[in-house]
Amino acid sequence: MISFASDNYATAAPEVMQALMEANQGHMPAYGSDPVTEQAVSLIQNSLSTDAPVFFVGTGTAANVLALKVMLKDFESVIAPDNAHIVTHETGAPFHICGTKILTCSGGDSGKITPDQIRRLHHGESKWGIHATSPKVVSITQPTEFGTVYSLEELAAIRSTCDELNLLIHMDGCRLYNAAATLDCSLGEMARYADILCLGGTKAGLMFGEAMVFINQELAENFGHRRKLGLQLMSKMRYVSAQFKALFTEDLGLKLARHANEMTTRLWNGIKDCDGVSAAYPVESNQMFITLPQEMISPLQEKFPFYTFDEELNLVRLITSHDTKPEDVDSFLSLFHSLLK
Amino acid sequence: MISFASDNYATAAPEVMQALMEANQGHMPAYGSDPVTEQAVSLIQNSLSTDAPVFFVGTGTAANVLALKVMLKDFESVIAPDNAHIVTHETGAPFHICGTKILTCSGGDSGKITPDQIRRLHHGESKWGIHATSPKVVSITQPTEFGTVYSLEELAAIRSTCDELNLLIHMDGCRLYNAAATLDCSLGEMARYADILCLGGTKAGLMFGEAMVFINQELAENFGHRRKLGLQLMSKMRYVSAQFKALFTEDLGLKLARHANEMTTRLWNGIKDCDGVSAAYPVESNQMFITLPQEMISPLQEKFPFYTFDEELNLVRLITSHDTKPEDVDSFLSLFHSLLK
Amino acid sequence: MISFASDNYATAAPEVMQALMEANQGHMPAYGSDPVTEQAVSLIQNSLSTDAPVFFVGTGTAANVLALKVMLKDFESVIAPDNAHIVTHETGAPFHICGTKILTCSGGDSGKITPDQIRRLHHGESKWGIHATSPKVVSITQPTEFGTVYSLEELAAIRSTCDELNLLIHMDGCRLYNAAATLDCSLGEMARYADILCLGGTKAGLMFGEAMVFINQELAENFGHRRKLGLQLMSKMRYVSAQFKALFTEDLGLKLARHANEMTTRLWNGIKDCDGVSAAYPVESNQMFITLPQEMISPLQEKFPFYTFDEELNLVRLITSHDTKPEDVDSFLSLFHSLLK
Amino acid sequence: MISFASDNYATAAPEVMQALMEANQGHMPAYGSDPVTEQAVSLIQNSLSTDAPVFFVGTGTAANVLALKVMLKDFESVIAPDNAHIVTHETGAPFHICGTKILTCSGGDSGKITPDQIRRLHHGESKWGIHATSPKVVSITQPTEFGTVYSLEELAAIRSTCDELNLLIHMDGCRLYNAAATLDCSLGEMARYADILCLGGTKAGLMFGEAMVFINQELAENFGHRRKLGLQLMSKMRYVSAQFKALFTEDLGLKLARHANEMTTRLWNGIKDCDGVSAAYPVESNQMFITLPQEMISPLQEKFPFYTFDEELNLVRLITSHDTKPEDVDSFLSLFHSLLK
Repeated sequence: MISFASDNYATAAPEVMQALMEANQGHMPAYGSDPVTEQAVSLIQNSLSTDAPVFFVGTGTAANVLALKVMLKDFESVIAPDNAHIVTHETGAPFHICGTKILTCSGGDSGKITPDQIRRLHHGESKWGIHATSPKVVSITQPTEFGTVYSLEELAAIRSTCDELNLLIHMDGCRLYNAAATLDCSLGEMARYADILCLGGTKAGLMFGEAMVFINQELAENFGHRRKLGLQLMSKMRYVSAQFKALFTEDLGLKLARHANEMTTRLWNGIKDCDGVSAAYPVESNQMFITLPQEMISPLQEKFPFYTFDEELNLVRLITSHDTKPEDVDSFLSLFHSLLK
Repeated sequence: MISFASDNYATAAPEVMQALMEANQGHMPAYGSDPVTEQAVSLIQNSLSTDAPVFFVGTGTAANVLALKVMLKDFESVIAPDNAHIVTHETGAPFHICGTKILTCSGGDSGKITPDQIRRLHHGESKWGIHATSPKVVSITQPTEFGTVYSLEELAAIRSTCDELNLLIHMDGCRLYNAAATLDCSLGEMARYADILCLGGTKAGLMFGEAMVFINQELAENFGHRRKLGLQLMSKMRYVSAQFKALFTEDLGLKLARHANEMTTRLWNGIKDCDGVSAAYPVESNQMFITLPQEMISPLQEKFPFYTFDEELNLVRLITSHDTKPEDVDSFLSLFHSLLK
Repeated sequence: MISFASDNYATAAPEVMQALMEANQGHMPAYGSDPVTEQAVSLIQNSLSTDAPVFFVGTGTAANVLALKVMLKDFESVIAPDNAHIVTHETGAPFHICGTKILTCSGGDSGKITPDQIRRLHHGESKWGIHATSPKVVSITQPTEFGTVYSLEELAAIRSTCDELNLLIHMDGCRLYNAAATLDCSLGEMARYADILCLGGTKAGLMFGEAMVFINQELAENFGHRRKLGLQLMSKMRYVSAQFKALFTEDLGLKLARHANEMTTRLWNGIKDCDGVSAAYPVESNQMFITLPQEMISPLQEKFPFYTFDEELNLVRLITSHDTKPEDVDSFLSLFHSLLK
Repeated sequence: MISFASDNYATAAPEVMQALMEANQGHMPAYGSDPVTEQAVSLIQNSLSTDAPVFFVGTGTAANVLALKVMLKDFESVIAPDNAHIVTHETGAPFHICGTKILTCSGGDSGKITPDQIRRLHHGESKWGIHATSPKVVSITQPTEFGTVYSLEELAAIRSTCDELNLLIHMDGCRLYNAAATLDCSLGEMARYADILCLGGTKAGLMFGEAMVFINQELAENFGHRRKLGLQLMSKMRYVSAQFKALFTEDLGLKLARHANEMTTRLWNGIKDCDGVSAAYPVESNQMFITLPQEMISPLQEKFPFYTFDEELNLVRLITSHDTKPEDVDSFLSLFHSLLK
């Protein structure tokens, strides 16, 4: 199958499989006390130029939810754009598990939240004192759910607003490498603005596994207990760690993300000037949200699965991944242009 | 103090105090197995023309939260207008205790939710299948937080939409008697559209105490356990029940609410034609949300406490209660008109 | 009805009713910002010789659960004797609401927990590191569920053990005045050993209402939010406060408790030497757990309701309260002795 | 490293790694809608002779916790022996996430719970009505935490007691294949007594992954939503499924478990007659709990890591796994005997 449905449809990168084979030798201590985990953590810390504690968990939703849980007291709340994954696509887990309210605003034309919106949501809630929640965390996604990318200046401005309002920052970086490829910066240059970074592995080319990086190191206190309590302590941890070790060796993650972004550019370039095609959001990483002539959608999906996001608007999402081949894109384009006529 | 801040600033009605004195005689079984509770429940059931189970709890927030908790499975969510008390003024308790997401829409010019909005929120969430929550409950407040009142036709239309979409209805009736006074209908004519009705006592003239009426009787299963689990099982229950007994004897509740509504009418009539005064919402029960000339607000509040809801818009709320006297209103009006000049 | 079933079967003391009538005058700010609340808090603080923050809540279970919730992080646990009310008779609310594990040991012949048991439970759990919970709170009840009373020396020894192990102390004092009467000490002499004291009002002679006293003042941070989140913020707070004001005026609470204890002594003295009667625990406050000849139980219960705790052992509980009259006791004794023959 | 510490120290079986390589081809739908998952589920169902729904999750604790969560209403509780993993070694997750109380009894000399104990715990709790929890689930572990194995007759007797008391059965089968090897029966012959079976993969020879089998099919309703809510929905599901596919192909799981059991037998045979060695529990599967002469423990652990369970009793646990080689056992025995002298 060739699909543009999700980077979750993709394979694990060959380097990752190789690392798993290598880690599969002899007994090793369980629960993360093994040498592979130590190496993987060290590689991630080097890459981010930080000594922040790093913990591996099973899924992206788990990483987000546990990050919020660590940051919130029972009466505190989260500020986020209404398109945030934690709001829309996590089956309500942040509400259910953190028991929190999420104060939302429109992500507007960019999918992003602005300092001004943060300020307004904060005031509108906290002015009610004990009768409302206390906003404590701003959650941002880099790149956003719509594939747009916060500039380093935008991140700095949000950080500065949060510092002023005594708010923490959760950064959902499930595709952070794609943002790094776009901005041509290191992961660390973005991560420094977060208190907790959820660093994606699965969409970057692993079989599974996400990393939580506690830039604000105090938040890591007792996270050993909390990860197990959160159902995320893999007993044979080496098999997560080995994958991350591969991803952070010789910039594999960045290489894979650059390729994915390029495939999106190739795809977008091939269709952007066609009649009836327009982008709902700027195309800046490895996904595009575009409107298509309605009659083209089904025939394309039949051959190359992808998701329709709004049936009324004929809004669809196309995603490329580390294993999307140029010829896959070209096959899509070929069918696309044949349907245009 | 004479205030227009909240019906929570008010006293308990004399009939209620009298009932408490009468109940304070000799030993009685605890936890609701006493004769006073039996009488109170019976009076409420008669008033609502129903044999629905009735349970007393301590606070309005408790009633709302336990009602939602009973109706929701862990992955299910609530639909409500964004001004709902459960959304704005319960310190996030519905999120924290029910672990639920609340899907909101604007209450618009009326503070109400419409069948069309319900339909749209339901579709927008449920189309994501297992990746989003399943909407299960619509929460409405009668009268709304802005003092407007759903007509019986509006309630019927919402019920019909909910039946079609397999949604339950939570009715926050913390001032339901005021709605009955407005619509000139019985409590039962409104209650029949709810699955669970939270029937207010405190704001109606009690010292404390709210009633939960399980119109949808299946939802009451195990509520004996659940009320205690929800920290709402008063041991000396007779002292809640006695108050409700008074409220439902000789239509006391309706009488008190009519008076409160009339005091709001008197107040509104006295100021509505003044320069710089306008109502943000139709004035339909015992509260009004109005904009005032900015310079009048502080001098008025100093003498007659009330809340400012939006400092930028000079939007304030004035509430009257069962013990607001005509001369209290007239004193306010007198100061008001003296300030106008 | 004359009963020995529970101090929850009792009335509110006349002084309490009088205080309610007095508080029922004019408008007052809601949610505890009223002068009656200020006075009540002040009286309690004076009585306990402390400036610890005091918060009123609706029920004893609520007080216990919110106290534990404030003291516990998500991975932390509680140590308690297996007869503790939080373990046995709160419908699992401490587990459900605090999400905590409670490590239990036998209360033995006294119903009490010992420093040695605390030490053993602490070690047995914490030695498993991240794979088990971290014990954080010891919960003691004064008097215990079986009516026995910790001496001040026993309390000091538990405190010292807890300090050493970095454990906090929750004191369930739903009948604390009865312990004060037994030990002939002030409430403060016991309260000083607690981090949070749940100070009972209902069983002491109120209609309803319990006080939480934050001896460890840091734990009170944000409790304003947390009380509302815990469904315990009474809007017309003055009606709880007025009752506590009465209880702490002219030592009313102590006077009522002394009477209740004396009635238990009178009862116990009247039966303790009879054949087939023995106390399961030392009779030290206002309740006794005794075994009776089986054939006497039903005839006694029919006339004077009380609870059987173990049908196999013919173990029953008899409780006296502030409104138990000497002639009530004597009627019971008269029937008792007539049944003995 | 050669260890006898845990089957979590072990590798993934070669067949499992091979299956992962094969699954790593081309795009596939995410979240379990892929052909590999379909095949794996089908193989498990065939092996268990059932059409019960099967769901994969990340960890054993997650499987146990989500199973209990599905079976319990908020006021219901669990009955289990006090050695159960859910009680002792899951960082309190069952308490925290399910919000439940667990009623425990001693596992005695066998580590097992008996019908009589179930009956007694059930009565002792439910007799308090709304003031206590309602027991709803019995949790058994097969083999037990101490390596003993319930016979099919014992399982049938527990089932019959549970049916009578309206209790569900949760079976923690994290090493179920080892029990099958011991009893020489199929997985299905044990699974039929459970309502939900948590079928271990990790300890059986996978990298990671556990299966939940809903023998009581009604309990699977909405588990698609609930698994994601429980942070256990792997996006690239094929990589869990592929491993289970290998485990259930040509009885691999049983083969690996038989070997592990044999290694324990070899080990036990080599030491059981030595002075100062005794088994705390019958040695029946792939682990043994034994007391050793104190002076031998450290030297053995230094070379072959294993856990001490009770320092005072010199009680240690030795576990063998699918990749324990006979020569590993013999090396241990050789050191053991040299230390004996």
